[in-house]
Amino acid sequence: MDLLQGERWDYIAGTELRVIQSPDVFSFSIDAILLGRFVNVPIQKGRILDLCTGNGVIPLVMATRSKAEIIGVELQARLADMARRTVEANQFSSRVDIVEADIKQLPQDVRRGSFDVVTCNPPYFQTATIAERNLNPHLAIARHEIHCTLEDVIRACSECVRQKGKVALVHRPERLGDLITLMRAYRIEPKRMQLIYPKVGKEANMVLLEGIKDGRAGMNCLPPLTVYNEKGEYSAAFRAVYENSADQQQSVRKDNYDAAAK
Amino acid sequence: MDLLQGERWDYIAGTELRVIQSPDVFSFSIDAILLGRFVNVPIQKGRILDLCTGNGVIPLVMATRSKAEIIGVELQARLADMARRTVEANQFSSRVDIVEADIKQLPQDVRRGSFDVVTCNPPYFQTATIAERNLNPHLAIARHEIHCTLEDVIRACSECVRQKGKVALVHRPERLGDLITLMRAYRIEPKRMQLIYPKVGKEANMVLLEGIKDGRAGMNCLPPLTVYNEKGEYSAAFRAVYENSADQQQSVRKDNYDAAAK
Repeated sequence: MDLLQGERWDYIAGTELRVIQSPDVFSFSIDAILLGRFVNVPIQKGRILDLCTGNGVIPLVMATRSKAEIIGVELQARLADMARRTVEANQFSSRVDIVEADIKQLPQDVRRGSFDVVTCNPPYFQTATIAERNLNPHLAIARHEIHCTLEDVIRACSECVRQKGKVALVHRPERLGDLITLMRAYRIEPKRMQLIYPKVGKEANMVLLEGIKDGRAGMNCLPPLTVYNEKGEYSAAFRAVYENSADQQQSVRKDNYDAAAK
Repeated sequence: MDLLQGERWDYIAGTELRVIQSPDVFSFSIDAILLGRFVNVPIQKGRILDLCTGNGVIPLVMATRSKAEIIGVELQARLADMARRTVEANQFSSRVDIVEADIKQLPQDVRRGSFDVVTCNPPYFQTATIAERNLNPHLAIARHEIHCTLEDVIRACSECVRQKGKVALVHRPERLGDLITLMRAYRIEPKRMQLIYPKVGKEANMVLLEGIKDGRAGMNCLPPLTVYNEKGEYSAAFRAVYENSADQQQSVRKDNYDAAAK
């Protein structure tokens, strides 16, 4: 499959999945992979929607965990095209569809889709001034709340998910207060949270949060996950999730015990 | 100082502080100590209020960290009396006061106190049926939302704290959604959160949350704290906080690194 100028294939560590990346346009981050692994998905069948899908990495990860039909929605034509070619290259075209659309004006069939699960790794930064934004328009739109605010995202999630269906988001912990109040305002009850820490002793720099449409109140806070060890390498616990290695998950449980709870 | 029937003196581990406890009436838990250590307090002067103070353990811990004037409010006469004798025995009577009152009907001077800091370790359990409550009325009131709901607690905190003053609470993570939405509803912006885990690999069973009255949005999530190690003993990291040992804090930082981020 042909790549456009500036593009390259990247593999998702520990998997055979490959993704078209371009530093000039969009590169996925570990945030997206972690969300794709964190969210509860139906295994055998169902319908999943990923908003702000970028180059389609979240649908890709979920497609390895679920046989459901998956739709990824992306605003930028250039990225939607990358996502489509990525899906094709990984031979998921029969059940992963990429739709080019604005989440504030979703096509009727998506908006009324009654999805079992809706995921989103939204733009993180509230747009202050033009000067503070990335000068590259592709990156600016992916990272800043230019075309959609967090409220737009959560409203769209709530519209598209079915009753008792799940909505899972990844964001910065700074926005945890906003996430929880907005989810509740749009009838998504926060149910499962995990904080991601860059290193031991540092504050969290990522939060994974899953809610249920019209769910009962009551939240579970999962064990923390620390990305880097003291040597600056990925920790075994992180690799077990990121690379989805069951063998590693076994040994990590033991390691972690010996280490963290001294 | 005389003890009443069923009472005993307990020491707060690693300190010289002693507290009157009675299994029939009230015993403090680690939750209270952790809140007393977690909250940001003014060092040299100021006014601090602790609601639902029980036997006064939170004021006691804060009194070792701050020279501020501290008021503890307790509904139950029997507990307020224990708290007063505890304060006296630790020679804090000159700056720690115990007031017997209902937080829903606080005396004017407390309610309009413009406190720099308000803390509370409220009853955790939403009251379902009489059958599910503790049969001991002292313990039932301390543990169940019989005389005050979480909303009553947060409303009272918000009334008593000054503009830009701090409100710090400890609760079960199940209630995190309620905590955040209620704090915001009563103009306390959640700013600092720490999750407490019983053991490595388990879900959190405690959340410490501090907000600022009319503060700016934006939350920091502190490193997690794990109470027990694999042997079922207090972990070094936990002891460093609980016993407030600076030496241990040093060595723990190193230990934790070696261990958790493998």
